[in-house]
Amino acid sequence: MHMEPTSFSAESYFETQPPPPTLEHDVEQVREFVQRQAKERRNVVLVTSGGTTVPLELNVVRFLDNFSAGTRGATSAEYFLKAGYAVIFMHRQFSLQPFSRHYSHSTNPFLDFLEIETLKGQSTPRISVTQDKREDLLEVLTVYKAVHAAGTLHTLTFVTVNDYLWLLRAVSQELSVLRRKAMYYLAAAVSDFFLPRQKMSVHKIQSGKGNLSIEMDQVPKILKSMVDEWTRDGYIVSFKLETDPDLLIPKARAALERYGHQVVIGNDLHRRKFEVVFVSRKPLPALPPGAEPVPDALESTFVESWLRIDSTVATGVPASQVKEIEEDIVAELVRKHAAWVHAGQQA
Amino acid sequence: MHMEPTSFSAESYFETQPPPPTLEHDVEQVREFVQRQAKERRNVVLVTSGGTTVPLELNVVRFLDNFSAGTRGATSAEYFLKAGYAVIFMHRQFSLQPFSRHYSHSTNPFLDFLEIETLKGQSTPRISVTQDKREDLLEVLTVYKAVHAAGTLHTLTFVTVNDYLWLLRAVSQELSVLRRKAMYYLAAAVSDFFLPRQKMSVHKIQSGKGNLSIEMDQVPKILKSMVDEWTRDGYIVSFKLETDPDLLIPKARAALERYGHQVVIGNDLHRRKFEVVFVSRKPLPALPPGAEPVPDALESTFVESWLRIDSTVATGVPASQVKEIEEDIVAELVRKHAAWVHAGQQA
Repeated sequence: MHMEPTSFSAESYFETQPPPPTLEHDVEQVREFVQRQAKERRNVVLVTSGGTTVPLELNVVRFLDNFSAGTRGATSAEYFLKAGYAVIFMHRQFSLQPFSRHYSHSTNPFLDFLEIETLKGQSTPRISVTQDKREDLLEVLTVYKAVHAAGTLHTLTFVTVNDYLWLLRAVSQELSVLRRKAMYYLAAAVSDFFLPRQKMSVHKIQSGKGNLSIEMDQVPKILKSMVDEWTRDGYIVSFKLETDPDLLIPKARAALERYGHQVVIGNDLHRRKFEVVFVSRKPLPALPPGAEPVPDALESTFVESWLRIDSTVATGVPASQVKEIEEDIVAELVRKHAAWVHAGQQA
Repeated sequence: MHMEPTSFSAESYFETQPPPPTLEHDVEQVREFVQRQAKERRNVVLVTSGGTTVPLELNVVRFLDNFSAGTRGATSAEYFLKAGYAVIFMHRQFSLQPFSRHYSHSTNPFLDFLEIETLKGQSTPRISVTQDKREDLLEVLTVYKAVHAAGTLHTLTFVTVNDYLWLLRAVSQELSVLRRKAMYYLAAAVSDFFLPRQKMSVHKIQSGKGNLSIEMDQVPKILKSMVDEWTRDGYIVSFKLETDPDLLIPKARAALERYGHQVVIGNDLHRRKFEVVFVSRKPLPALPPGAEPVPDALESTFVESWLRIDSTVATGVPASQVKEIEEDIVAELVRKHAAWVHAGQQA
């Protein structure tokens, strides 16, 4: 599979890679959802969540993937809903989802807290929830039912990085009608590399013919297109995940510099549950007309603020009462977004 | 990441690649489980299920994966339990599991069929199951509780292909004490390739430095070691998944020829839910002492038998009544295994 690498701009990407078959249907549903929220004057946030795959074969058996259970996205979506936002939850198939995330089949299987009760004089047994889980489940279920009744959560799924890119472009374009009232919370772990359709093997790559060698192309930097073309007024939050703490802030700054969006939330793979850093641009001081900014001012163009929660969890605390860092992340973004909306009304 | 490929035998693999940290603990639990089943005179089947990952970094962000939701393994495990087997269910973390598989958070989320009932004169509302789901859930829950009470299901998880290989070797060695009463149902989608630890990048591979190129080594053929060393008397069933139907039988025969185990179940990616083929060796005709087998007999050494179910599902049929091909696969294997156990007692 050794071939010459190609360089893709966002434009050439969409010209050469085919859209997912469900795109039109998905976009129509998003359009209806956005129209309804606009009428009801709600802010809308697009939350992307989970990893993307890069299939190596057209009849896909093998793929490259990015590590992400979808915890950040699913948890944040719940807090956005609680803050009164409507949420478009665009997630990797089978990654965690708001509400059901509390009941992972591996760590907290719901079948374990259901009981069969045989009642006197009744032929059919009743299914009930064990005492110790009742309160937590009731809390989750109550919010879940309320959100469904209000119609403020819309879920979309993707699998491949190609699905993701096409969906992101289309949803951004739909959301752009809300101007500054739209937020983009891009928590999905998106592959930096992909295999163009034109280079994919049709059938399962056969082993027994030696070792596997894959050469992938770079995914175009679509944040630039979002800011410049798809949704000029949207409030865009991207994430940087690194394993080397020394790279976190330099890479976050470089992303803001390159794409010109609003916030990068940096997180270290091993500390992400209780520590993140918000990196954004400092508003430049007002200069007298005609004055040039001094070099010093340019060097301190960025501002970082750390957000931390206690990393120790007391034993015996019910799950619903454990503090989650996403609560504070969302609260901070809601504040920043309100200021952004306000500034837009002033301008 | 271009380096010279190395060729690994099973032996050199385990000499150079580190065991997963939980291995010893996992093996101890398996040992206790096997001892208990031996006392209670149950047959034990090891069911492996789900895909394996190949991490590209030591601090893993990216990995190669194999497509597998774990449906075949999780479904078959249920039928083995119903047939009276004890099951060691060794599966990829977050892949489907027996019983809970019926309630995928994506396609059949359990929160949707719970209701909150506020009862007269009671301050705390009650959680109950909606009428239309009650019967199915009661059936699943009843078997689930019975299996837990009998202690016939033991679950192990793996993530990487390295976890899988170490666990498979250790569990096979533990199960080998049961001799012919142990079955191995190897439904996991195991990577043919891996990246030796010595070649892995410590931190997240940085993009922006051009394209990604990965060169992987072949995973050693551990089925050969299972048959020859780890569990000489076990009844071993392996799977072949192909996307090119013309390769299915030749590749299944080649596997039997090379490894010398009992059955290969071949399935085509797109038809696997309603069609599989059992490939095994034909018992050779008894020859007069001193006679050489004729070439013709050698050519027809293999026997194939197709197993098919109706691929159309009538609408309105409750989920618990939809026919699953795994029911017939397991029934056929239980028969074959009984004959194998019987033959062992004759010898």
